[in-house]
Amino acid sequence: MKRTAMIGHLNDTHAETTVTLQGWVGRRRDLGGLIFLELRDRSGTVQVQVEPGSPAFAEADRLRAEYVAEIEGRFGLRPESQRKGGLGDYEVLAARVKVLNTAKTPPFELDKGDSVAEDIRLKYRYLDLRRPEMQRGLLLRSKAVAAVTAFLDAQGFVQVETPMLTKSTPEGARDFLVPSRQNPGEFYALPQSPQLFKQMLMIAGYDRYYQLARCFRDEDLRADRQPDFTQLDMEMSFVEQDDVLATQEELLAHVFRQTLGAELPLPFPRLPYMDAMNRFGSDKPDQRFGLEFVDVTDLFQGGNFAAFASAQTVKVLAAPELTRKQIDELERVAKQNGARGLAWLRREGEGFTGGISKFVGDQAAELLARTGVGPGGTLLFAAGDWKKAVSALGAVRLALRDLFDLAAAGPQFHVAWVTDFPQLEFDEDSGTWTYMHHPFTAPHPDDLALFGTERQGEIRAQAYDLVLNGFEIGGGSIRIHDPAVQAQMFAAIGFSAEQASEKFGFFMDALEYGTPPHGGIAWGFDRLIMVMSGAASIREVIAFPKNNRGVDLMALAPSPVEVAQLADLGLQLME
Amino acid sequence: MKRTAMIGHLNDTHAETTVTLQGWVGRRRDLGGLIFLELRDRSGTVQVQVEPGSPAFAEADRLRAEYVAEIEGRFGLRPESQRKGGLGDYEVLAARVKVLNTAKTPPFELDKGDSVAEDIRLKYRYLDLRRPEMQRGLLLRSKAVAAVTAFLDAQGFVQVETPMLTKSTPEGARDFLVPSRQNPGEFYALPQSPQLFKQMLMIAGYDRYYQLARCFRDEDLRADRQPDFTQLDMEMSFVEQDDVLATQEELLAHVFRQTLGAELPLPFPRLPYMDAMNRFGSDKPDQRFGLEFVDVTDLFQGGNFAAFASAQTVKVLAAPELTRKQIDELERVAKQNGARGLAWLRREGEGFTGGISKFVGDQAAELLARTGVGPGGTLLFAAGDWKKAVSALGAVRLALRDLFDLAAAGPQFHVAWVTDFPQLEFDEDSGTWTYMHHPFTAPHPDDLALFGTERQGEIRAQAYDLVLNGFEIGGGSIRIHDPAVQAQMFAAIGFSAEQASEKFGFFMDALEYGTPPHGGIAWGFDRLIMVMSGAASIREVIAFPKNNRGVDLMALAPSPVEVAQLADLGLQLME
Repeated sequence: MKRTAMIGHLNDTHAETTVTLQGWVGRRRDLGGLIFLELRDRSGTVQVQVEPGSPAFAEADRLRAEYVAEIEGRFGLRPESQRKGGLGDYEVLAARVKVLNTAKTPPFELDKGDSVAEDIRLKYRYLDLRRPEMQRGLLLRSKAVAAVTAFLDAQGFVQVETPMLTKSTPEGARDFLVPSRQNPGEFYALPQSPQLFKQMLMIAGYDRYYQLARCFRDEDLRADRQPDFTQLDMEMSFVEQDDVLATQEELLAHVFRQTLGAELPLPFPRLPYMDAMNRFGSDKPDQRFGLEFVDVTDLFQGGNFAAFASAQTVKVLAAPELTRKQIDELERVAKQNGARGLAWLRREGEGFTGGISKFVGDQAAELLARTGVGPGGTLLFAAGDWKKAVSALGAVRLALRDLFDLAAAGPQFHVAWVTDFPQLEFDEDSGTWTYMHHPFTAPHPDDLALFGTERQGEIRAQAYDLVLNGFEIGGGSIRIHDPAVQAQMFAAIGFSAEQASEKFGFFMDALEYGTPPHGGIAWGFDRLIMVMSGAASIREVIAFPKNNRGVDLMALAPSPVEVAQLADLGLQLME
Repeated sequence: MKRTAMIGHLNDTHAETTVTLQGWVGRRRDLGGLIFLELRDRSGTVQVQVEPGSPAFAEADRLRAEYVAEIEGRFGLRPESQRKGGLGDYEVLAARVKVLNTAKTPPFELDKGDSVAEDIRLKYRYLDLRRPEMQRGLLLRSKAVAAVTAFLDAQGFVQVETPMLTKSTPEGARDFLVPSRQNPGEFYALPQSPQLFKQMLMIAGYDRYYQLARCFRDEDLRADRQPDFTQLDMEMSFVEQDDVLATQEELLAHVFRQTLGAELPLPFPRLPYMDAMNRFGSDKPDQRFGLEFVDVTDLFQGGNFAAFASAQTVKVLAAPELTRKQIDELERVAKQNGARGLAWLRREGEGFTGGISKFVGDQAAELLARTGVGPGGTLLFAAGDWKKAVSALGAVRLALRDLFDLAAAGPQFHVAWVTDFPQLEFDEDSGTWTYMHHPFTAPHPDDLALFGTERQGEIRAQAYDLVLNGFEIGGGSIRIHDPAVQAQMFAAIGFSAEQASEKFGFFMDALEYGTPPHGGIAWGFDRLIMVMSGAASIREVIAFPKNNRGVDLMALAPSPVEVAQLADLGLQLME
């Protein structure tokens, strides 16, 4: 290769030597007869100076933004007053310039990319991807893939590719279908996850499996979803929950160390689901900051404030001083999240004013003691049905985080497990019990006796979520391997053996042929990389994403096809 | 974890210690009151002995084939007469046995798997995958993935995921279509390869890219094809052909070293396409053995054997002694591959008998000298149009390899490059020129002047194939980055600028915005692993393959779907 180094790898050892660089032209300034250019490659940017008398001048004078150039010259220190540290201490004095390719004027200036409409960035993705911010995210992602692979390979995990053209799995979302031309009228489904296949691999004796798996869900796209996404999918045999968690902690710590040079303290704290909900109002709490809830149900029970007197739950959090406008905005958040309102109090002296203060008498001292709210601080209450109350106050807590930038004062990364999820949820709409994760999640062995009783809502699942900065970045469970427990589970959710077999077919068969105890997890890889790189959206860490209508604005997919292509598949458009 | 070691990791250091193992029960023999079991995990198999007086006996007595068991006991030497080397020197004297799961009687005996109908193996794939032969292939595959990732990451390659739901690419094969529910009447295509996207990444400045990419082609499945397959896809910027080849050689050598402990001699030999065809009758010659062709066109030109007298090409290879039956069989092969027949001669003394011997007069001495055929040996001839003649004789050469197991005497692995492919091929059917690889392959710079002349068939492409033991395991090229050359190429294949833009749309736009010189390659990863592991078919190195009707016999995909699901997509079955 002609280049002697990538730009970002230049350093003091190259000082006063001749280098050959290749890259893209950024800004160009013509000053006092000289040409000043920025030359950029994936690794960095350096200033190039071309003097008017130089044999390189005529060719250099052709260079415009985004031209591709090869530049040979002396890598030397800039005048002392102009040094900016690092590469900015240096410049290249060009002796030879070669235009490797020209470029049309880009539709937007690359260094103003952040302010460009996303549709334009997506249409010209190959230009958007030249921006150093975008390259940082994708390079971090690549490093994370290499770190994951090295770690898991060394730990005896086997990388196995599972089918892309498969059968509908019971994940609940809508499948993308792929018509089969060889079997007209029949369809493959793109996988929603490799869940059944990875369990099959445990049944097949592979012991430890991993895969960076592309997964597909045909859902209406919300703000930060993609029709396809990437899961780091793992499964282990002969393990209990602690084994999976310990391995995962080492893996994540390894990834952070290798990519960001950051140390994650081990072991990760574990938070049972009930604690997470009671203290933070979320099953994926952002613990970079406090603002924990305090339970005050007992203080108001049977009291003179009707809305609290008979509430199942009354929770309060102690916020900083808030304006009425801020309180109104937070109340809107609470209501959007299922609360009927947001009661509040402002501390004044040793008592409270505003909001529901006229209903607070004897409780004032106890409220002060329990919440520790400071002078001028605001207490915010949610009351009612337990889950609704804590969830609404959880949303208020996050709104406060954003309002006061509370997370900034905490650690850059806070990782935790949420454990002991309920095995079963009662679905009010259908009046039936259903599984919370999926029907193969193993219940806690101590809770087996609760199956089929009134208290089966209290059965804890051996399920766990990995939470980073308030994002669920992973979720998994120990799986059922005992057919008797599987039968109990199906009975609990009202499935007959026939229904189970119809729905899960080949997997139910496989379970009968010697299934080892096993469990695993899947990481939302796009989201992990988003959080690690500080990006605002997963679209920033996916090279060629779709917009929220599922459209690739660069490639212009999807698109109409020929009638004959459909006929080959035994299909026609609906009339 | 309860197990103290995986079975295959047990060795002399564990002798006379207590071990806890977990795995599957293989053969069981009851002998003289004792129970002898094979216990198997992914890493190996060990014999377990349970004595009648042991507290483990009752539980051990429940064990049947493919039960999952945990066994604790003393790992000790077997009686000297029964030692079989390695793990076979030892057995475990069980002190505790725990049945972790039961198993129904498998539908076939695992250690007779090779003789079981493939349909049965595919239906019960989770049992088939327990066979050590199958596990070896998939474990090798996994190790190769890790080796590739480590090598490419260290060399600055960036792993980038390209879209799975995309637009039809001009690879020539039929696309799998995915109906878009959000855009009814429109369709995504599953990618045939990431070709355009990886070139886009070079335009975007990523410099070096790799991906293990799932690719899809909806072709009628021949014996050893799958509807989806895996490509190790790579691309590099600012490189020439020698740079790509050198990097690839180091990569493949690294993979062989890390997975098989095998050293590939570097650099790999390079064989220009014309030499490969002239000497071996194949653009992916198996060079583990000789049997090279000798050109004898001149010897017969204008002679008295009409079939050879005016032939464009007459090639001969010197085979061992053959029976008439064998010659007939080889003639059948030649005819299947486009020859009109297979002329032959048997050496007798200093002359020839049989076959076309009555037409061989003066040429006999020269034939002996040029071919070096031994006493009793057979000369096999192909004549006619050059490409047909050499291809037919190439097929005969491979049939001889299989007949006499010629490859066994050669090196276990023979790797070579085939280079200098023609840029353009004349398509007799349509009477037009077409591209041999794809229209973005760069021509050899020395041959540019031939574009648009009568000799444009002689333009060499900067294209290269990687050949292992007669299989094409990789193919790539330097790409066109100069719009002027691209225009020449399109003109040569009769594309107008409008047609090019219509067919390649966004990619043609991207090329105008500062495209660096670049080139790359893609490996057929399934096939590579097949050859490395000595498997007979790619299905042996794919965990859950389709059969040749595109059916997954285990998951039973594809399958019919509800009318309502189709209606959601704006589709209906054809009436």
